[in-house]
Amino acid sequence: MIAKKRYNYFRILALPILLYGLFAMHSCYAQEHPSLILTKKGVSEIRTQLGKLPLFDSSLAAVKAEVDKEISTGIHVPIPKDYSGGYTHERHKRNFLMMQKAGELFQILQDEKYAVYVRDMLMEYAAMYPKLPLHPQTRSYARGKLFWQCLNDANWLVYVSQAYDDIYDWLQKKDRDLLEKTLFRPMADFLSVGNPQFFNRIHNHSTWGNAAVGMIGLVMDDDELVQRALYGLKNDGIKAGAKDNDGGLIKVEGQRAGFLANLDEPFSPDGYYTEGPYYQRYAMYPFLIFAEGLHNLRPELKIFALKDSVLLKSVNTLLNLTDADGEFFPLNDAQKGMSYYSRELVTAVDIAYHFGGNDPQLLSIARNQDRVLLDDSGLSVAQGIRDGKAEPFVKTSINLTDGPDGKQGGLGILRYGNDVLTLVFKYTAQGLSHGHYDKLSFSLYSKGDEVIQDYGLARFVNIEQKGGGNYLKENTSWAKQTIAHNTITQNEITQFGHDYETANKHHSDLYFFDASNPDVQVVSAKEDNAYPGTGLHRTMAMIKDDNLEKPFVLDIMKVTSNKRNQYDLPFYFMGQVMETNFKYTSPTVLKPLGTANGYQHLWVEGVGGPASDNIKLSWLDQGQFYTLTSATDAQDELLFTRLGADDPEFNLRRDAALMIRRKDTQNTVFASIVEPHGSYSPVSEFAVNATSSIKNLKVVYDGADYTAVTIEDTKGKEILFVVTNRDASVKSVHQLKIGDKVYKWTGAYHLFGE
Amino acid sequence: MIAKKRYNYFRILALPILLYGLFAMHSCYAQEHPSLILTKKGVSEIRTQLGKLPLFDSSLAAVKAEVDKEISTGIHVPIPKDYSGGYTHERHKRNFLMMQKAGELFQILQDEKYAVYVRDMLMEYAAMYPKLPLHPQTRSYARGKLFWQCLNDANWLVYVSQAYDDIYDWLQKKDRDLLEKTLFRPMADFLSVGNPQFFNRIHNHSTWGNAAVGMIGLVMDDDELVQRALYGLKNDGIKAGAKDNDGGLIKVEGQRAGFLANLDEPFSPDGYYTEGPYYQRYAMYPFLIFAEGLHNLRPELKIFALKDSVLLKSVNTLLNLTDADGEFFPLNDAQKGMSYYSRELVTAVDIAYHFGGNDPQLLSIARNQDRVLLDDSGLSVAQGIRDGKAEPFVKTSINLTDGPDGKQGGLGILRYGNDVLTLVFKYTAQGLSHGHYDKLSFSLYSKGDEVIQDYGLARFVNIEQKGGGNYLKENTSWAKQTIAHNTITQNEITQFGHDYETANKHHSDLYFFDASNPDVQVVSAKEDNAYPGTGLHRTMAMIKDDNLEKPFVLDIMKVTSNKRNQYDLPFYFMGQVMETNFKYTSPTVLKPLGTANGYQHLWVEGVGGPASDNIKLSWLDQGQFYTLTSATDAQDELLFTRLGADDPEFNLRRDAALMIRRKDTQNTVFASIVEPHGSYSPVSEFAVNATSSIKNLKVVYDGADYTAVTIEDTKGKEILFVVTNRDASVKSVHQLKIGDKVYKWTGAYHLFGE
Repeated sequence: MIAKKRYNYFRILALPILLYGLFAMHSCYAQEHPSLILTKKGVSEIRTQLGKLPLFDSSLAAVKAEVDKEISTGIHVPIPKDYSGGYTHERHKRNFLMMQKAGELFQILQDEKYAVYVRDMLMEYAAMYPKLPLHPQTRSYARGKLFWQCLNDANWLVYVSQAYDDIYDWLQKKDRDLLEKTLFRPMADFLSVGNPQFFNRIHNHSTWGNAAVGMIGLVMDDDELVQRALYGLKNDGIKAGAKDNDGGLIKVEGQRAGFLANLDEPFSPDGYYTEGPYYQRYAMYPFLIFAEGLHNLRPELKIFALKDSVLLKSVNTLLNLTDADGEFFPLNDAQKGMSYYSRELVTAVDIAYHFGGNDPQLLSIARNQDRVLLDDSGLSVAQGIRDGKAEPFVKTSINLTDGPDGKQGGLGILRYGNDVLTLVFKYTAQGLSHGHYDKLSFSLYSKGDEVIQDYGLARFVNIEQKGGGNYLKENTSWAKQTIAHNTITQNEITQFGHDYETANKHHSDLYFFDASNPDVQVVSAKEDNAYPGTGLHRTMAMIKDDNLEKPFVLDIMKVTSNKRNQYDLPFYFMGQVMETNFKYTSPTVLKPLGTANGYQHLWVEGVGGPASDNIKLSWLDQGQFYTLTSATDAQDELLFTRLGADDPEFNLRRDAALMIRRKDTQNTVFASIVEPHGSYSPVSEFAVNATSSIKNLKVVYDGADYTAVTIEDTKGKEILFVVTNRDASVKSVHQLKIGDKVYKWTGAYHLFGE
Repeated sequence: MIAKKRYNYFRILALPILLYGLFAMHSCYAQEHPSLILTKKGVSEIRTQLGKLPLFDSSLAAVKAEVDKEISTGIHVPIPKDYSGGYTHERHKRNFLMMQKAGELFQILQDEKYAVYVRDMLMEYAAMYPKLPLHPQTRSYARGKLFWQCLNDANWLVYVSQAYDDIYDWLQKKDRDLLEKTLFRPMADFLSVGNPQFFNRIHNHSTWGNAAVGMIGLVMDDDELVQRALYGLKNDGIKAGAKDNDGGLIKVEGQRAGFLANLDEPFSPDGYYTEGPYYQRYAMYPFLIFAEGLHNLRPELKIFALKDSVLLKSVNTLLNLTDADGEFFPLNDAQKGMSYYSRELVTAVDIAYHFGGNDPQLLSIARNQDRVLLDDSGLSVAQGIRDGKAEPFVKTSINLTDGPDGKQGGLGILRYGNDVLTLVFKYTAQGLSHGHYDKLSFSLYSKGDEVIQDYGLARFVNIEQKGGGNYLKENTSWAKQTIAHNTITQNEITQFGHDYETANKHHSDLYFFDASNPDVQVVSAKEDNAYPGTGLHRTMAMIKDDNLEKPFVLDIMKVTSNKRNQYDLPFYFMGQVMETNFKYTSPTVLKPLGTANGYQHLWVEGVGGPASDNIKLSWLDQGQFYTLTSATDAQDELLFTRLGADDPEFNLRRDAALMIRRKDTQNTVFASIVEPHGSYSPVSEFAVNATSSIKNLKVVYDGADYTAVTIEDTKGKEILFVVTNRDASVKSVHQLKIGDKVYKWTGAYHLFGE
């Protein structure tokens, strides 16, 4: 059913081309439209290319089909009521996505029905908006009007600004005046001066708010709004230390605000966004789309060149933060499965290609995405692909600094081959309010499969039944806790005492990163603030030894403390247990491991101790075998845990871990190897190389200056890995006697016997 | 490294073509070689087609690469020692697979190195075999010599017979004499007269044994062996009632034996194999490959035409027993993931195409398999595909009878669309020793995803660490138990008292099956022996209602008993719980639900009761939402269970169920709906249609003659489904008054209000 026409405007029946020119003449503004994302020149070029660019044509056809179907269901602008996942939330979300697309279709196809659709819907919003109170759901620190939080209202305005730009010239002036006066300007004010606690942060929320206000300002040619967006509110009246409903800090002393500050602060010089890739993906859209608008309408800002082209660089960084399936590593609060196939990354890749020097590697990502933006940048990408310019996107081992100046820790990614084995090692800053307390944690991937997992967030984004689609309480009680991660928890207390202000002041420090030799890649970092009085120093190496079928990861966690503590080191392995070399008892009733700090969520499925100086656990997952070998003390406790205790609403996955618990210990080293090997197929039923090739792992030296381990394989070869503890220089010469043998080397580490 | 040549035979250096003719002339047998699977005529045809058939050429190249790599590692014939998964087991298995392929390569490529490889390896076996004692592992009721069970020795001989046939003419007569005298004939005797308890059963073991003896007999032109294979041992000296190490019956009174009896008994006239598709797949290879040999060398038997062409028909049946990914439904003992991509199904599909009238639908399966046999049948398939004859394989709703005469129950499969929703309803006979005690159970699939699962077996086939790759004790204590399945357990006792002899005497009975209307498909069956004194009558309907987005399954389980009992009906749903409409408590410690019959393996994660006369449980899996709606009594107990108790070696998956427990009840009806709806993507983060469209499900009538339920949807429409209980005739006219309304219909069921 076609949407009922509620406004009786004069309708011209002339040919579209003619019609377009006539409408353009109606404009009394100096600024032409469209000019924000689509441009008059771009539209003209797009129209001459129609039918000649397969990827652009198929993208256009898909969008047209989607919008046509939507138009046939009519216009629905309900009174706001629901949280994410609920009807009114999803309806308003769909509306802004559809308006943005309909605007593009109007420009490209010059079919008036799309302009009518946008106008009619906007008129319904304009009729409703002035009467709207704050959204009835009260959870947010910054409640919106259309949605339960300003964030989503800002989403709406970022998309709708584009639609408005597309139909601007087509609209009658009185309609423009009405829309601007009753809808756009009030909304822009509401999202800024009306909600400084939302608008004036360094946070992805504010980036959306800034972009929303700035983009509608650009379309309306309202420079006051554009300035507000770029530089924030001068006086926000917010006290330093204020927090949002997720516990995130709203303001710290001396904080700047606005789009440019948000661009400056959360991005490191390497293009790493401090909240992590999931939120970087979310933030990339307003960053890049507003930047494109500024590029078009405020070229003097040279927005894409700022901070050494950090916006464009960050797209490349984001693509490097994916596994072989294109899924983002779920650092901090992150929903697993989000990937470079998302609409935000289509935008990011197309814009980065078009405005960032036409990197042919981006074309292979765009080809995987199988769609392009319906604008100048999408046109560029479609042309590049048609002309056969695409090259494989090569992901490499990479060290990414964190912090505005790149001095607040970072993230080390070691890769062997084409994501055959990928280690993600986290020594970042806290990551703002979405950060987890997991200094020096890691996760491990084999192609697109998780081997040792990071849990990600505890939330079902936009699924209303699950806490309104918002963060669940288990996100705090489990996902953010240290014990939920593959790193040290001391005395069953979460790092930094789970105190955000404290954590936010600190970061881990890189000790060294060296991926120059693909067969021996090493990253090493230190953390001295997570547990005052205790120093953590973790060194992780990805080693490909000729005697072993596949590369493996060596993990050396050195702990130094001023007192005796209990250290828990879990490995959240993914898959089904094959065998262990140690004995354990299996409780006849399952009890939680603790009462707080995440321990209350862990059932204890087994309790054991080492039978020798090495423990081994083998498991099978996705057709590959894995073995964890760890050098243990005789007194160590080994705990098989299973997530799911204190989880009455089944919000948590029933995932397993093996936890090594070392009690009453001051200084110690946890040395472990995670080793993929062999294969199994339920179709051929062949089990190949199903057992570990590591015979023994031993800490042969541990002192203030050096730590050394030996690895003996089942063929009898022994290699020795030594790492310095206090001198990361690549030039220093070292000498160490272990047993009867003297080892000499240059640099922060060395692998002997390889 | 090329295998060291250990035998100094005269080697001809002439051109291959010439050479081939010369060798053929050397034969002093009337029977030509090859003639078993490859034939002289076929080889000649294959050679003329080389380079012209893409799928044949790529299959040949893959096999050549595999065999060449294997040859380069040398010949390894170790003294037998290990269970499945262990080195010697896997090595000998690899040897027979490689010899069979090398034989084909010799014929097709006429490169002598392949013949040399087969001969040299056979000579090593011939040198070892006469000295071999029984295999040192003692678990089997019929220990082999090369392997721990005769079954695997028979596998060896089935494959090696083909290799021997391929190089027969090339071998010198003294070598043939040596091989036959010291290896083949002794092995054939060992597998038959030496192990009558293995050879003379009605069981897939015996089929392998029969084929092994028969195929080597055909190659050696030893008709005594062929007769033994076809008709079994006349006097086996086995007592009726003897059992194997898995508890399977070896002999029942008056049992026939041999290949023809095995063909006759376990296959129903519909081509359903009583052990289920996993074992049917396993048995298909010896059935079809020996049949092909008999077709070639004993054409007078008309083997493919026997029992209304049951062998060829069974291939089609087997393909219908798969989900959208080609994976077999895991009925009875079955390893999940086994599919039509297995080597056995490549054989089955190619042979069925070639000897079964060139059904073009089989070509699309072969195309998915992406490889063909290197013989006459593979050539046919490759030609058909090249010539564009392939048609989609259309899987339909199908009712398959069980039992040699088709009168021992069966299996009903209801499908909506192209496997959009697939219901597998089991009312079969016991399925011999690999059968599970799960009369009237079901499983449900959405495309290739399990919605309500059947557990399958508890075993990691060929993974040595897991109990030598054999059946685990949890297969008996869990997988075979009734409570492991989606059907009724009475008084916490497994059906038939878990007594195989009893179960083997009975089968469920079809009441009716009607898939004539794709929008209302129904299957209904009864079981009166699982619990003496209690009758179970389950009716399952797949309904597509215009008001609902997707088809759903209606499940009516009617229980009638001569006393009061406790009835447990679990639903093993796959996915994460979204919400329930009932209250439950979550224990602070987890305890097992019981102490025996499978209950000892179930942790109780929640205990609740209905808040209204309907319970609802929604979950999310693989991007789709599902809701179970069930009409419940106020006194019902609702149990969330999680598998994994009493499982010290982590042999079981941690799968969940919702169990409806009705205590102290005599006659009752469990009415439920399983409803797929909506979608969720972690990439778009859109949650569509996330809640159930069923408002109310009500049992409005239940009597001796009729049971009726109403289904009200959220749009307010109500439909009424009525099923007769004692008259399945399609012609009978019925009348029933419910409340004030009189319903009239013809046939065993009717859906009113649709």
